[in-house]
Amino acid sequence: MVSKKKYIFTIDDDCFVAKDPSGKPINVLEQHIKNLLSPSTPFFFNTLYDPYREGTDFVRGYPFSLREGVTTATSHGLWMNIPDYDAPTQMVKPKERNTRFVDAVMTIPKGTLYPMCGMNLAFDRELIGPGMYFGLMGEGQPIGRYDDMWAGWCTKVICDHLGVGCKTGLPYVWHSKASNPFTNLRKEYKGIFWQEEIIPFFQNVTLSKTCTNAEECYIELADKVRKGLGHIDPYFTKLADGMIAWIEGWRMLNPAKTA
Amino acid sequence: MVSKKKYIFTIDDDCFVAKDPSGKPINVLEQHIKNLLSPSTPFFFNTLYDPYREGTDFVRGYPFSLREGVTTATSHGLWMNIPDYDAPTQMVKPKERNTRFVDAVMTIPKGTLYPMCGMNLAFDRELIGPGMYFGLMGEGQPIGRYDDMWAGWCTKVICDHLGVGCKTGLPYVWHSKASNPFTNLRKEYKGIFWQEEIIPFFQNVTLSKTCTNAEECYIELADKVRKGLGHIDPYFTKLADGMIAWIEGWRMLNPAKTA
Repeated sequence: MVSKKKYIFTIDDDCFVAKDPSGKPINVLEQHIKNLLSPSTPFFFNTLYDPYREGTDFVRGYPFSLREGVTTATSHGLWMNIPDYDAPTQMVKPKERNTRFVDAVMTIPKGTLYPMCGMNLAFDRELIGPGMYFGLMGEGQPIGRYDDMWAGWCTKVICDHLGVGCKTGLPYVWHSKASNPFTNLRKEYKGIFWQEEIIPFFQNVTLSKTCTNAEECYIELADKVRKGLGHIDPYFTKLADGMIAWIEGWRMLNPAKTA
Repeated sequence: MVSKKKYIFTIDDDCFVAKDPSGKPINVLEQHIKNLLSPSTPFFFNTLYDPYREGTDFVRGYPFSLREGVTTATSHGLWMNIPDYDAPTQMVKPKERNTRFVDAVMTIPKGTLYPMCGMNLAFDRELIGPGMYFGLMGEGQPIGRYDDMWAGWCTKVICDHLGVGCKTGLPYVWHSKASNPFTNLRKEYKGIFWQEEIIPFFQNVTLSKTCTNAEECYIELADKVRKGLGHIDPYFTKLADGMIAWIEGWRMLNPAKTA
């Protein structure tokens, strides 16, 4: 996250170019940029999906006052072949492969959380970068494989607060290999348990009107995490500390933003 | 709405069987019934869409406590060829055709409204029938082409209150002809204007905990419509009366429900 670019794209090392149903290789970056440069529609659902795509529009009954949409902060792409399953689902369905190409991009509605996977993800660093903290998980920590989920819950709450959008759908990447479900289970099991309290926390958390950018939102969120999740495990106090340290680092790297 | 069947399917007279991308005719009823008989997931977004479809599931990070889903009340199908546009969009894009087959079914999240089109719609009459009032619009009324939208807003609010789900996506029908945009504009123009107040009303309306079925919800909603929208135009007082009369008729036809 030391990049100074406006748009960031993250992809796992086992993800490759996928093909669309016509056999054409998918230009992942082009689609992510299209998603990020066209508005989002978080306040009302459009049944024909992204209304800014060629060949479609807002359907009858969509309020005209909402048709300009809002700025898009995040573009969450999907995966053909190996789906992004948790360890229990991997174990139950070891042979399941994603072969369904869904030709859609859509905005996750305001107030709705989603499981943001970091495997194929693009975002506007200036807008939401401070929320994209993937830290304090994995080696030496009590949980792993929740770093992207954590960032997803945080950024969704912040995007909703700031009135910017998160899109999901196209582009697909080809996810070549499944990670080891037994290793994954060891990393995940506390997260699977803890998320049952974490999700309601994020569903109900509200940010102050005085927070007008992602940085300010993230600091307030760290404080709410400390107070609201600290009782689950001492880990969450450390995570809140990590969130604050992350923003301190962010500020050093982006001095203009705090001037 | 004098049917006593559990599942109702409505289709316009200019809609015919569509084909999937492989050229196979789509069995609309089969897909609607699949949608209605499998649960909905309104509380958290699944990025691989309907997790109950073959070949897919809940993705990593989806809370296990929510994986049983909730009962589905409504299945909203889409349209190939002529999209369901309002008159202004029809006028601006007279040649636009929907050629994109999106192979997905999804739950509209809780708290999010959508434009429910009656062209290709199935629902569970016992669960949500009382909210499916398409009345007091069209000939002799100040607006038309908002009957399905009105029912959609009402049923979505009621479904959210009752904790049941609304799905959209498959199945597609082939919508053969566009209606006259000039006639449509005459029917719609007040609705286009009024919906700018109606939508925030439905976004903010809450129903009492004592309302435990669609009938009770609809009566309370009629009262809130009278108080909350009556100032826009005397028409809304009449519409609230119509909503009450509709429920009275409903009760006569479904006496067991009020015993």
